[in-house]
Amino acid sequence: MRTAQYLGDHRVAAVEAEPAAPEAGEVQIRVAYTGLCGTDLHIVHGDMDGRVRRPLAFGHEMSGIVAAVGAGVTAVQPGQHVTVMPLSWDGTCPACRAGHEHICQNLDFVGIDSPGSLQELWTVPERIVIPVPESAPLRQMALVEPVAVAVHDVRRSELRGGDRVLVIGGGPIGLLIATVARHRGAEVVVSEVDASRRGQAAELGFDVIDPAGEDPVAAVERWTEGAGADVVFEVSGAAAALRSATSFAKVRGTLVIVAIHPVPREIDVQRVFWRELRLLGARVYERADFEEAIGLVAAGVIPAERLITDVVPLEETQEAFARLESGQAMKVLVDVAGAAL
Amino acid sequence: MRTAQYLGDHRVAAVEAEPAAPEAGEVQIRVAYTGLCGTDLHIVHGDMDGRVRRPLAFGHEMSGIVAAVGAGVTAVQPGQHVTVMPLSWDGTCPACRAGHEHICQNLDFVGIDSPGSLQELWTVPERIVIPVPESAPLRQMALVEPVAVAVHDVRRSELRGGDRVLVIGGGPIGLLIATVARHRGAEVVVSEVDASRRGQAAELGFDVIDPAGEDPVAAVERWTEGAGADVVFEVSGAAAALRSATSFAKVRGTLVIVAIHPVPREIDVQRVFWRELRLLGARVYERADFEEAIGLVAAGVIPAERLITDVVPLEETQEAFARLESGQAMKVLVDVAGAAL
Repeated sequence: MRTAQYLGDHRVAAVEAEPAAPEAGEVQIRVAYTGLCGTDLHIVHGDMDGRVRRPLAFGHEMSGIVAAVGAGVTAVQPGQHVTVMPLSWDGTCPACRAGHEHICQNLDFVGIDSPGSLQELWTVPERIVIPVPESAPLRQMALVEPVAVAVHDVRRSELRGGDRVLVIGGGPIGLLIATVARHRGAEVVVSEVDASRRGQAAELGFDVIDPAGEDPVAAVERWTEGAGADVVFEVSGAAAALRSATSFAKVRGTLVIVAIHPVPREIDVQRVFWRELRLLGARVYERADFEEAIGLVAAGVIPAERLITDVVPLEETQEAFARLESGQAMKVLVDVAGAAL
Repeated sequence: MRTAQYLGDHRVAAVEAEPAAPEAGEVQIRVAYTGLCGTDLHIVHGDMDGRVRRPLAFGHEMSGIVAAVGAGVTAVQPGQHVTVMPLSWDGTCPACRAGHEHICQNLDFVGIDSPGSLQELWTVPERIVIPVPESAPLRQMALVEPVAVAVHDVRRSELRGGDRVLVIGGGPIGLLIATVARHRGAEVVVSEVDASRRGQAAELGFDVIDPAGEDPVAAVERWTEGAGADVVFEVSGAAAALRSATSFAKVRGTLVIVAIHPVPREIDVQRVFWRELRLLGARVYERADFEEAIGLVAAGVIPAERLITDVVPLEETQEAFARLESGQAMKVLVDVAGAAL
């Protein structure tokens, strides 16, 4: 079968490999589409070489059709449309015992810590396979994983209808958070430095702020009549954005840390104290987030076709990363199945 | 009457002044004791010269006896033992309208932004005067304000009985937080670099960590069997302590920012994200915290006499700051009334 593998040294290549037959409790999926995300870009950049083995067929945002099941599998059957929640926890660490399996202290993130969905036939444990409605296009179902991130982030923020929400960073996750928050009844503004991404946010109906072109704190003060935003999502990953993020939140407001900040970063701790702010880390998703994400995509709440800017064949995965990096693309899907589906 | 005033330029002096007679809705209090705190030390250092006018009779931790009341005052009467919750809010800003008057966006902190209790006769609005039981010694009632800070911090943390709590910084506020947390059923460890303060914490029955003498993260891991602390209070104000504070918290644990960090500080944001931590700013107190603090001091839960290491006459206020700064003293009270009570 065909796979796309990270070889190390910034290289990604299409490689022929032998598919793994499903053993007891396993499901073999014919992968339809795999989305590429910022974490995949970090892998290709070599930033995660300390964590990922090489070569690695990576990828973790996907949709597909069950090809075969191992002994004892009851959750799905061949022919069923599915996606995968790519988390595998040990069930025994203190976090798991406290009910937070999704951020298990020894979490195996499938597609990063173990092989992912950039392969035509992907075999995974039954418990991480989730059925999706056949009425929804498989290419849209490849967005379920990032939508589940957004659902989780919004749920974690505890925002309520009528809340004023600022999303810092208008990339795919930022726009998905903005969409989910708006769906919950929030009034949403997106702050984004890149003009093209700002344009995409505006096209999706969001008010936008150009933090380089106007004073963003003054803009938020005007919008919220001096109160500040109820909830701020930091999705940019930029040091400067994080340093100013606390300035936008109201007294007792919430700042959700969504982006990855790989090194310690400066925060205006005085502001956290002064306004009794709440900062929340939010990472991946729980099963309920995944289920809700499937519903939101299937119902058309997520503007899937507007977010999917590129669909490329498996052989062009390396070029797709270049396009992702240029900021021209929003969501890039790899058409893993090609003529096979 | 005698007062102690901050004159600017690191100077504090005993100054004679005319007492203000209570107008309608005001209460004149004969001040018994005024405690000195870290904020007062910042004032004397000149760190807050941009905020405080000079000369200023400062001080905001106090106890006293009502001397006279203005027209229409019903909450207290002359002769009654009282303390003051030194917050005056505007009632109209967005924070006040949302019910967070204690951190009003235009808060007047009495004793910092307006005259305080280092004067024999102190006149304040009726609504900030709170009766205390006459059975409790007035010198102990001067601790109510810092105890209310601790009660507020602990309430904000939402800790529960059985929780494992780490307090970083064993000064007066740290030890009060530790005491209140223990009273709520938590298992408490105090981390403190200063040997003398560590000794005082141990004398109060707390397990202690010397973060310079052992690996504090390893110590907390051992104590919590690999989980991390449920709640961490950052009370030290030290940059290094804040940078490592997130390392002690369990998955979904809470870090309460109690100390003042006057400049932006580095935080391990990746850890906040990775463990889905919750960081909470906590500032001053609400009326319910003050009432609870009075009860805790009156009931002897707070080891008031062990915390009060020094009582000095009004004329020696400047010297008392030197002693406070040396780290030799824990809680210093100024005996404002002297022979008058």
